[in-house]
Amino acid sequence: MSNKAIQLLDEAIAANHKRTFYAAYPEQPKAYAEDATQQGLSAFQNRLNQNFTELHTVEPEIWIGEEISPYLQTGLGIHYPSLPVATYILQAQQAWDAWAALPARNRAEVLVDSLERMKARFFDIAFATMHTTGQGFMMSFQASGPHAADRALEAISVGVEELERYPNEVTWVKPMGKFDLSIRKNFKPMPKGISLVIGCSTFPTWNTVPGLYASLITGNPVIVKPHPKSILPIAIVVAEIRNALKAAGQNPDLVQLAPDTLAAPVTKHLAEHPDVQMIDYTGGPGFGLYVEGLHKTCFTEKAGVNPVIVDSVQDVKAVQQNLAFSICLYSGQMCTAPQYIFVPASGVQSSDGVVSYDEFVAGLATAVKELVENPKAGPFTLGAIQNEQTIHRTKAAVTKYPHVALASIAVQHPEFPDARMYAPVVLTASAAEIEGNISELFGPCVLVVKTADTAESIAMAARAVAEHGAITCLAYTQDDATMVHIEQTMNRTFTPVSFNFTGAAFVNSHAAFSDFHVSGGNAAGNASFTNSDFINKRFVWVGNRFA
Amino acid sequence: MSNKAIQLLDEAIAANHKRTFYAAYPEQPKAYAEDATQQGLSAFQNRLNQNFTELHTVEPEIWIGEEISPYLQTGLGIHYPSLPVATYILQAQQAWDAWAALPARNRAEVLVDSLERMKARFFDIAFATMHTTGQGFMMSFQASGPHAADRALEAISVGVEELERYPNEVTWVKPMGKFDLSIRKNFKPMPKGISLVIGCSTFPTWNTVPGLYASLITGNPVIVKPHPKSILPIAIVVAEIRNALKAAGQNPDLVQLAPDTLAAPVTKHLAEHPDVQMIDYTGGPGFGLYVEGLHKTCFTEKAGVNPVIVDSVQDVKAVQQNLAFSICLYSGQMCTAPQYIFVPASGVQSSDGVVSYDEFVAGLATAVKELVENPKAGPFTLGAIQNEQTIHRTKAAVTKYPHVALASIAVQHPEFPDARMYAPVVLTASAAEIEGNISELFGPCVLVVKTADTAESIAMAARAVAEHGAITCLAYTQDDATMVHIEQTMNRTFTPVSFNFTGAAFVNSHAAFSDFHVSGGNAAGNASFTNSDFINKRFVWVGNRFA
Repeated sequence: MSNKAIQLLDEAIAANHKRTFYAAYPEQPKAYAEDATQQGLSAFQNRLNQNFTELHTVEPEIWIGEEISPYLQTGLGIHYPSLPVATYILQAQQAWDAWAALPARNRAEVLVDSLERMKARFFDIAFATMHTTGQGFMMSFQASGPHAADRALEAISVGVEELERYPNEVTWVKPMGKFDLSIRKNFKPMPKGISLVIGCSTFPTWNTVPGLYASLITGNPVIVKPHPKSILPIAIVVAEIRNALKAAGQNPDLVQLAPDTLAAPVTKHLAEHPDVQMIDYTGGPGFGLYVEGLHKTCFTEKAGVNPVIVDSVQDVKAVQQNLAFSICLYSGQMCTAPQYIFVPASGVQSSDGVVSYDEFVAGLATAVKELVENPKAGPFTLGAIQNEQTIHRTKAAVTKYPHVALASIAVQHPEFPDARMYAPVVLTASAAEIEGNISELFGPCVLVVKTADTAESIAMAARAVAEHGAITCLAYTQDDATMVHIEQTMNRTFTPVSFNFTGAAFVNSHAAFSDFHVSGGNAAGNASFTNSDFINKRFVWVGNRFA
Repeated sequence: MSNKAIQLLDEAIAANHKRTFYAAYPEQPKAYAEDATQQGLSAFQNRLNQNFTELHTVEPEIWIGEEISPYLQTGLGIHYPSLPVATYILQAQQAWDAWAALPARNRAEVLVDSLERMKARFFDIAFATMHTTGQGFMMSFQASGPHAADRALEAISVGVEELERYPNEVTWVKPMGKFDLSIRKNFKPMPKGISLVIGCSTFPTWNTVPGLYASLITGNPVIVKPHPKSILPIAIVVAEIRNALKAAGQNPDLVQLAPDTLAAPVTKHLAEHPDVQMIDYTGGPGFGLYVEGLHKTCFTEKAGVNPVIVDSVQDVKAVQQNLAFSICLYSGQMCTAPQYIFVPASGVQSSDGVVSYDEFVAGLATAVKELVENPKAGPFTLGAIQNEQTIHRTKAAVTKYPHVALASIAVQHPEFPDARMYAPVVLTASAAEIEGNISELFGPCVLVVKTADTAESIAMAARAVAEHGAITCLAYTQDDATMVHIEQTMNRTFTPVSFNFTGAAFVNSHAAFSDFHVSGGNAAGNASFTNSDFINKRFVWVGNRFA
């Protein structure tokens, strides 16, 4: 292995266990070349209205593509090669054997090389992400670039560790009294087979690479089926993995891109193919249940109802500002964004005395308004809305919960006058109003629920999560016993809790090598980035014995 | 922790990784007290026609029991306390919290103590096993005693290692340029909840303790539902775990025994209870599919069609004798016993020249006959037939495949004139005859299939296993390329292969700390003793963050 690959791998394996801060890829754009932003932008612009030829596939049946920039609200005009399902399957099978025969560290070297190639494309990928997802530039860069690459490296490193868990070969000698019984044994991690990774429209790279790299490191061929509206970012990543495979003398068809359109979806044809053994899925719960119902090995991230429990605070303004940022970031289109904020009718204890329920809601609305209306921060934090449906859903929520503490503020993006913007609305409801009505509030919408007291807040949050799942829970309390109670109650629903986040700590962020993303234990999804199950379910230990 | 527990745990963790020979509990009866056999027999005899009061449960609704000794063919008359399902669930919930709060090593200490208590009952358990399963004394002692305890220790040790995989608490410090962002984090392995372990009639202890101890070490309460015809061996184990819990100040209801009868089965009521989160199951594939269909976390060992591929041998007699023993051991009532023996029509190459197909079959029949008729070995190797149905199934196989190379030989047990004995039959069939007809051949029956050549043998074995699963595959070949071909082909069906076993190496035996029992990758079952999945699926990592 190259020195670079060995170093990254060893660091990553250690980091997985330590779970203190570690990042292999710097998250600040300024850590990269000075002209990288301009170069990335040019690369993106030069690609518009062209065929995406970097995949170097066999001659495709058709070239397809229907991506639309949420910032420009015009089509990108980029077309990708589409092959028949049978061709993807056949080519995956053909590429499989040689890859499966490679030792784990040799596979890791090729995959780390692909990440280094991806690193050279971070800015290219950033603009591709911006103009497919609507994320602001900074999130596009970080989430689709270094944070995604870190998550990929995390999967590779957990993979290597699991694959090296047992010796390749041992001699087992059993004392039998008068003689010894000696048997040579080997232990082989056998890959399960073709892996289908289904991407989502909002995080086309970040949510795709963990499953993609986890399947690759464990020896499986992968077919990536991106969301038809967010293909370009992951197409670049797939192209670079194929380049790395080719450079290593491997068959690039080990990783294939299978794009489709909304009108002619290919996902079910791939998912139901008998040779597809594993499915990674990120997206809505309806299709997620379909995927889980196929009873193949599957890894899902669906949706949840992330609660916030406000009991008592030190500095109420700091809390409201922190919440406002988490609500506004990418206009609530993150799976980790707060949705239901439970506040007691009696108000919130603070170091300046009790803040009444109404004051708390008003202060939160003000904090959101101030952030949204801040011309230097607002539009860049909000980004654009990926899908028109998200705005319709938010409007439906307003119809359902008509107590509006803050209506959506019209925001103009300084660089993109046609951007599809929709600033978050802050709604309120009584505990009785939401009982039995809880469902995911995805997008620019948050609901403040007035509860009898914190005990009711906790009980409602736990009930909602037990039924609908959650990826995050945010809680504010200055009371030790309440903190323990919240932690224990929410942890029983397998939901992690972030306590008293203010300043630069945001509930939306999950750091690779430290925070598990999704616990895998509730309805929000069955997979977790990257615990050992995420790796071990992709292969089977088989031990042979030789007398 | 006690020194003894620390030592066993550390040795076991190391052994799991090394996979060379290790046994914590000696398998030879002579390694124990001189009068242990007599004491165990007396304990068993004194228990007949009594209530089993060692569980010290609350006053039961009824006392039930319908076990019948396959050796005596009379009822044991032992009755066990039966409680309502709601009581088991409630008591499990009540015992859960304190146990879940214990650190992994403290749980391990209690569980290792329970194994030491079980060790003191090995002979008692051996006679209980003999007179419920029909196993010979030696297998009853080894499988239900030391081998079971080793498998339990294996589960405990993999459990401790997985539970200690991440630190309890860390401080995560992210450099943010002008300041550091510092967040305290904890990582908690949260147990999933009530675990139901469903036992089988033939290996009531060995097949039950891995799931039982795996659920316990990961912090879950367990309800053991034994097979109604094989309760006593595991009842003694459960009683000793309850004693160990009580001695440690824990609530003994953390482990409960839920016996039932064939007429009034309780398994589905327990399995379908919404508070039961996990199910371990060993038994027939029909009920196994029902268990898997509940879509709870489940661990199954069902059935398979274990193939034998005979290509070429050194000493044909040694091979036939080895096969004969594996066929006769416990009259084929082992999940690891050979079922389908594929032999080429052109015969078997040996160091003494080619052995024709007919000669091979005749020699195998002779080897079985000689073993069965050996008064010092035959009856003790065969044991008795646990269930009359097993004999009916064997007779049905003879009707289906009427070419009988060896009919069942009448055997009288020297100690138990009423023992239900049925010596193995050796049947033959052409490849065409079995095509499309393959199903599990459980019990005293083996089918020799005449194939065109070894390539067809391998292909047929692989197809059978891909469809029906297998736990073992035995192969004889002197050709390196053929060996590689068999290994690769069968490993792709996630079936381990044992090559060229003669002498004291038998395909039926899977050693704890070295051989995975069931790969978990084919239809024979989804669980494997004891890989990390067997542990990790029983709890969920949840990480909390504190600003």
